[in-house]
Amino acid sequence: MPATLSITGTTRVYGVIADPIAHVRAPMVFNPLFEQKGTDAVMVPVHAPADRLETVLDGLKAQPNFGGLAVTVPHKLAIMELCDEVGRQGRLVGAVNAVRFDEKRQMIGDNFDGAGFVAGMRAEGHEVTGRSVLQLGAGGAGRAIAFALADAGVSRLVIHNRTRAKAEELAAAVSAAYPQVPVSVGAAEPDGCEIVVNTTSAGLHDSDPLPINRDFLVPGLLVAEIIMIPERTALLESALERGCKIQFGRHMLDKQIDLIGGFLRCFQ
Amino acid sequence: MPATLSITGTTRVYGVIADPIAHVRAPMVFNPLFEQKGTDAVMVPVHAPADRLETVLDGLKAQPNFGGLAVTVPHKLAIMELCDEVGRQGRLVGAVNAVRFDEKRQMIGDNFDGAGFVAGMRAEGHEVTGRSVLQLGAGGAGRAIAFALADAGVSRLVIHNRTRAKAEELAAAVSAAYPQVPVSVGAAEPDGCEIVVNTTSAGLHDSDPLPINRDFLVPGLLVAEIIMIPERTALLESALERGCKIQFGRHMLDKQIDLIGGFLRCFQ
Repeated sequence: MPATLSITGTTRVYGVIADPIAHVRAPMVFNPLFEQKGTDAVMVPVHAPADRLETVLDGLKAQPNFGGLAVTVPHKLAIMELCDEVGRQGRLVGAVNAVRFDEKRQMIGDNFDGAGFVAGMRAEGHEVTGRSVLQLGAGGAGRAIAFALADAGVSRLVIHNRTRAKAEELAAAVSAAYPQVPVSVGAAEPDGCEIVVNTTSAGLHDSDPLPINRDFLVPGLLVAEIIMIPERTALLESALERGCKIQFGRHMLDKQIDLIGGFLRCFQ
Repeated sequence: MPATLSITGTTRVYGVIADPIAHVRAPMVFNPLFEQKGTDAVMVPVHAPADRLETVLDGLKAQPNFGGLAVTVPHKLAIMELCDEVGRQGRLVGAVNAVRFDEKRQMIGDNFDGAGFVAGMRAEGHEVTGRSVLQLGAGGAGRAIAFALADAGVSRLVIHNRTRAKAEELAAAVSAAYPQVPVSVGAAEPDGCEIVVNTTSAGLHDSDPLPINRDFLVPGLLVAEIIMIPERTALLESALERGCKIQFGRHMLDKQIDLIGGFLRCFQ
């Protein structure tokens, strides 16, 4: 039976919270999964203007049949502050992208951006544990991925960012949290690293320059992207031409959905 | 496309608010109508424990994409108190069964129980305006129906109730609100009335006595029921056998859904 047609009084409700709301895509991802898995759940858009965020969350916490939220722009930082508990990656990144309401109606948040990347790599046969990684970019996604790579136990993490101070700040934070992992700031050169991860937005547009010089793309190097559209960024095209292995951006999202769905207990 | 599969960021969200929640049926009524009419809307169950009701409502009011609620047990009275505005029938009945959130996020409530009954009668070709009516029962539904019958301009309204004081109280309230309509308290006898309406629960169970003596069911009398299950109550069976016209209970619900849907602006 189609799923809104199967919404009943027992259906557990989930939301994706954002402002503006019209562009959110989580319902189109989660509802077909609920259908497919036969889960008695539905995900709806929850529009929360920033100045009403706490009121909206209080209202959701008070509803015992409301299971949790996927969290997106601009609420990832503010909601972390409002959570009763935040998982380690969420605390390290300073932002949550999912919150669950537990039996006591406590709001538990965490961040699955970085874990999604690592799981996406593994799903494609690309282990990161014990490997050396050059990460390009130290923005929001880069921050999440750097902590997750350290958490996964990379042998070395080099962070390059156009604004060097941001790379230094992130490297220091990762080092402080994972002192056993050698973390440094470097140039946009693999310099012996086995994996290059692009977490910058370079590649979203045709006119973007490559985030790393093409000459550094050598056979055997694994080049990973987090940009989903286009699927084949200029970086990935160059990497293929140069004999590198590649990892598409979409795997990060796929695995993040699995992880968030598990966290929200909504695939049961 | 099945409707949860078509929930996007632009979908307007409606709820049915209750406690407990598992038994609510409104999503199974409204969502297929949204499907059928191609409305970009979804109705979900909103579980609000009585002691958290105000917090839940504040949260919903703060969400610009939340359109409104069908209201059911036990919140019809409490929500009327919390509304920013209440329509006349809602105020008279002292309970709302629908609330809409307007552009200013004000909560506007009203009660469509009685109007649904009157519209259901008309849809079946049974005009009440100018007719004399014996109403059996002065409980929650009876209260709504009495005000709606007076509002529709019946020529005379006689209210019978097992506990006479309740009938007297309701008759006085209806008279005060509609002084042009003759309202009285009477026995369970048509005494010249053209229509008999059963608003009591007698008929829900096989063992229930008829709410009116079978001898009073005479050809030409219209006997209306609000009980939906069984569709053919003992009263309606007797009425048919005795040559009366009859009105099934389900028409009241059908019309109420139209009226609530119109009020919530959710069939647009």
